[in-house]
Amino acid sequence: MSDYSIGVDLGGTNLRIAALDEQGTVLERITLDTAVALGRERVIDDMCAAIRRLVDKHQDVMPLRGIGIGVPGIIDMESGMVRESPNLPGWEDAPVRAEIEQRLGTLVILENDANSAALGETWLGVARGQDNMAMLTLGTGVGGGMVLGGRIWHGMNGMANEFGHTTVAPEGQLCGCGSRGCLEQYASATAVVRMAREAIGRGARGLADLAAAKTGFGAADVCKLATQGDEECLAIFRSVGRSLGIVISGLVNSLNLPMYVVGGGVSNAWDLFSPTIFAELQQRSMVYAATTPDSVARDGRGASQRVKPSGSKRTIVTKALLGSDAGLYGAARLPMLAGL
Amino acid sequence: MSDYSIGVDLGGTNLRIAALDEQGTVLERITLDTAVALGRERVIDDMCAAIRRLVDKHQDVMPLRGIGIGVPGIIDMESGMVRESPNLPGWEDAPVRAEIEQRLGTLVILENDANSAALGETWLGVARGQDNMAMLTLGTGVGGGMVLGGRIWHGMNGMANEFGHTTVAPEGQLCGCGSRGCLEQYASATAVVRMAREAIGRGARGLADLAAAKTGFGAADVCKLATQGDEECLAIFRSVGRSLGIVISGLVNSLNLPMYVVGGGVSNAWDLFSPTIFAELQQRSMVYAATTPDSVARDGRGASQRVKPSGSKRTIVTKALLGSDAGLYGAARLPMLAGL
Repeated sequence: MSDYSIGVDLGGTNLRIAALDEQGTVLERITLDTAVALGRERVIDDMCAAIRRLVDKHQDVMPLRGIGIGVPGIIDMESGMVRESPNLPGWEDAPVRAEIEQRLGTLVILENDANSAALGETWLGVARGQDNMAMLTLGTGVGGGMVLGGRIWHGMNGMANEFGHTTVAPEGQLCGCGSRGCLEQYASATAVVRMAREAIGRGARGLADLAAAKTGFGAADVCKLATQGDEECLAIFRSVGRSLGIVISGLVNSLNLPMYVVGGGVSNAWDLFSPTIFAELQQRSMVYAATTPDSVARDGRGASQRVKPSGSKRTIVTKALLGSDAGLYGAARLPMLAGL
Repeated sequence: MSDYSIGVDLGGTNLRIAALDEQGTVLERITLDTAVALGRERVIDDMCAAIRRLVDKHQDVMPLRGIGIGVPGIIDMESGMVRESPNLPGWEDAPVRAEIEQRLGTLVILENDANSAALGETWLGVARGQDNMAMLTLGTGVGGGMVLGGRIWHGMNGMANEFGHTTVAPEGQLCGCGSRGCLEQYASATAVVRMAREAIGRGARGLADLAAAKTGFGAADVCKLATQGDEECLAIFRSVGRSLGIVISGLVNSLNLPMYVVGGGVSNAWDLFSPTIFAELQQRSMVYAATTPDSVARDGRGASQRVKPSGSKRTIVTKALLGSDAGLYGAARLPMLAGL
């Protein structure tokens, strides 16, 4: 008999919960506010109450495999502790997995949310059927997730896949991580807004009008203006694409995976920034050039001239498919892979 | 009964062959000139004659497991063809594995030389016992090799581990690969000599004297002058360290492996450039800072302040141990891992 799992996307604002069966069919979903300000115990109580309601409804139909929870932070996979989580104050160094397992009496797996999203895309999204892929999630920051051999790649301490902190400009913008010139400073929603403010400082008319009309404008507003043809906004997304192109080129040259996926809110501007990603890949990645049939017939500049195209295995760089559900679905997938 | 393997390091200048048993004991070694100019057939004939001599001597003592050959180029692992090999003209797209297997009638495995070196260091070198590590080989170019889960990581087309073509300066030096600002342009022996010539152009006295005394000075000469305290030469190696630090920081943040190894001829200058690598790691890699106990007590700049140190699993960045034998020993290891 088939069974089902429950996935949780524990965001700083919303707590989203879904029950999915092994085929990836969504049986039911619940969205709650995350009562972060009321503390960890309260959030866990709310989460467990919602999960119990789901379990009560489905337990006579099929057995529960377990619960997977995507958390925005660094997880110690062995102990089930949250090590770092800027958006969840009071969760650090707490035995979160044990607290939830005690309440529910079932298998609970914690996972970093960007890793959950990568797993979700390999299960039900654009990377369906790919055993090897890397994903960048462009949100407030830039998260990263990677699946190798069908499993999430954690590295030795569960700290792998921090692609957002790859240097793209050695003397560039100071980053919250303490470094300079990290991708996150050039390709996140936060970065888009910063670049828009810088453009206003240089006299960008359309953006100045936007800022005057809307005090808290966001990356989506900049995207909308770019779509209307605003040159300053288009330049911002070309810059996003260039920085992403540098980092993805490095990943392609280092890992030679079949697929790289770009997700998160900023990926809604894919059509605006992806041409620059592909131009950078052509120039900067001989591995991309050799594994992308169309790439040889280009302009004579760059790596495409240097390495003969390879056979049938192509490098694909593409937009994510599942939007904000990627992490939720990936979380539900976690218990299904446990013990395999 | 124990068996043995034969490793071959097929360089553009020397052809080195060694027989090693499963414990890593070198039973015998042979070095020949590589008669590259006389063509592939001749080189393969020379190689096979030397291998037969080794086999004739040892076949009564223990059985031969197979032959591993490290090749400076891109190998198609499935077909055993050499796809790219700038230093071995006439070898590209030839069925090299089949040609050697036909002559010798035994298992032959071809491998990229930088991957062989990484495997050699995990078997008998500084990474002994590590199942996961990445290695950069600083020679004429910058090669890369990686071992994940005890096996060489090839990626989907055998083109992975091109760490030497990671961008460290987006608008930097043009690279042979077609990109700009690749690590190879800042951390290879070729790059050291180029930077030395640039320094001479800026009036560097000690280097100008060196160039006057020795028309074909090399990276080792620059290293020697640096060791004597020449400030221009010391600055060149700080620059090497900075570029390596940027790339290794990216690898640490992306992969969270336990060990990163720097080998190749330029690594003889390790003491000159490694302090700058570690300074860059401190600043640029929050994963390094969190996994290196000494890193928190530093100068307040950089990633070390942001992430709490992790438990017992540390990130080690170190010099290679086996010198030019790494690739040879790694090649001999290949047949021992085949079929595992």
